[in-house]
Amino acid sequence: MQDSEHFSIGIDFGGTSVKLGVCRGAELLTTDEPIPTSAHPGPNALIGAMAERVEGLRQAYPGIAAIGVGVPGLVDFDRGYVHELTNVPGWKHIPLKTILSEKTGLPVIVENDANAMAYAEWRYGAGRGLRNVVALTLGTGVGGGLVLDNKMFRGSSFSAGEIGQMSIDFNGKPGHYGNLGALEKYIGNAQIAEHAVQRYAEAGVCKDVAECTPKAIAIAAQNGDDIARQIWAELADWLGTTLSSIAWLLNPDAFVIGGGVAQAGALLFEPLERKVQSMLSTVVWEKLQILPAKFSNEAGIIGNAALAADAL
Amino acid sequence: MQDSEHFSIGIDFGGTSVKLGVCRGAELLTTDEPIPTSAHPGPNALIGAMAERVEGLRQAYPGIAAIGVGVPGLVDFDRGYVHELTNVPGWKHIPLKTILSEKTGLPVIVENDANAMAYAEWRYGAGRGLRNVVALTLGTGVGGGLVLDNKMFRGSSFSAGEIGQMSIDFNGKPGHYGNLGALEKYIGNAQIAEHAVQRYAEAGVCKDVAECTPKAIAIAAQNGDDIARQIWAELADWLGTTLSSIAWLLNPDAFVIGGGVAQAGALLFEPLERKVQSMLSTVVWEKLQILPAKFSNEAGIIGNAALAADAL
Repeated sequence: MQDSEHFSIGIDFGGTSVKLGVCRGAELLTTDEPIPTSAHPGPNALIGAMAERVEGLRQAYPGIAAIGVGVPGLVDFDRGYVHELTNVPGWKHIPLKTILSEKTGLPVIVENDANAMAYAEWRYGAGRGLRNVVALTLGTGVGGGLVLDNKMFRGSSFSAGEIGQMSIDFNGKPGHYGNLGALEKYIGNAQIAEHAVQRYAEAGVCKDVAECTPKAIAIAAQNGDDIARQIWAELADWLGTTLSSIAWLLNPDAFVIGGGVAQAGALLFEPLERKVQSMLSTVVWEKLQILPAKFSNEAGIIGNAALAADAL
Repeated sequence: MQDSEHFSIGIDFGGTSVKLGVCRGAELLTTDEPIPTSAHPGPNALIGAMAERVEGLRQAYPGIAAIGVGVPGLVDFDRGYVHELTNVPGWKHIPLKTILSEKTGLPVIVENDANAMAYAEWRYGAGRGLRNVVALTLGTGVGGGLVLDNKMFRGSSFSAGEIGQMSIDFNGKPGHYGNLGALEKYIGNAQIAEHAVQRYAEAGVCKDVAECTPKAIAIAAQNGDDIARQIWAELADWLGTTLSSIAWLLNPDAFVIGGGVAQAGALLFEPLERKVQSMLSTVVWEKLQILPAKFSNEAGIIGNAALAADAL
């Protein structure tokens, strides 16, 4: 698949800020000053602010042909309709595509943010050129998105890719939906910190959760702290269990892993590779790569811009 | 998608026998006397026997336009190449599509048997008309196949759908590949029997594995045996954990469940529905159906014939 030749705008709509950028193919040409989400109460005001920014960007880049918006919640991709954004007050049942398209005169697509990240990595990032890519973001929660047979796979109600809700223990800790063993309840940021506090306490070391961020545990492990290394191995065991299950089900070319926890690099990826290999047949493992994400904060802008350009 | 108007032959190549039938769309027009697999040692003799049968069927149905063969093992679908059939001696590295096509002059497709079953259910069975269908066969092992966005999904090395190898416990029983918590090691026929023997023993009832087939436990449960009912609930818990994980990942329209264990009907499906619902969000659950398979022994013939006809 060739790089798109269209100029398009990617909008990364988060709970804190709305970030905009102009892309052409793999290139992020410019980003705009973020709009604070809370500065525009209610969808109409915020969509109005987005449309104004779009106008500004079009003056600098007259060739802009489409807009892609990624939102932190459930959408109906076909209609470009936002069902609900739990972290953004007032955002419920909003026909975002229709409104933004009317205000700007441009074609608009609306996507879930984890899907947009997956698309960015498949189209122009670590998963470029691969047919089947499963992308994950490890942070407060665990999000994911699937590109299957070279197409974004959204599922029957646009909810596919909820990797953090998959179970690693039929008898395990309940997740947000009462789902026992939800991966997110083992490797979400807060859960990692709680687990680390406990592991240190077992070893007679008193630490609080603020001292046990994934970053702090990574630094400790790099400095030779055995407990910290053991914690990374446990995280790799849990995450690796889910990745191997996904690999048995989908036989993908690659997992692409981003988000804060993935910043630990080899501390996570080395035990993770060993774990996943130990859980798979040669045929499934041979084809599989486990890759760090190429993009970080800009993934949303690039992915949404690419989705919009590729839909033209 | 309309029923195919082509006549095609489906061949269900099993470890014990090779079954052939002629189909047109959803109709299975005739089946032929099965060929005992072991009667023709070596691939060439067996492929020769298949080709002879094909000739006979073409005399009765001159319109036959294609052949689909399903095999119990790993194939390269694109090349119609059999990597290995572990239960059929001598079947390793066989270009089945090329040989059978040369012998018959007809186009041939070669598919894995679990995929063919999934295709049969999606195309003409319980999953007909649905966009995303995950099919499972519960028997000695647990097999599966995926139809995603109205297309057979095969994965990057044609190995997708290995649902029996997915983990339900990161610390659980090792599967065939050393994969901890492999579902198959909980709900395969032999494992169900062993588990039942243990549950009865705990209750002071001495039974051997021959008395604890899935069928026997189903009859006991229907006759009001509390231990037997509890066993079905446990099986539903284990299977339901995997189904809910798949639902979070793929957000499908339906699971279609066939094979011997599924014959238990409501004994399995009722607790399974409750379990899966308890593990999902409303959005994912609302869209989801859990359906018994429409086809049983004829699934392979129908699925392979349909794959061959639809490829024309």
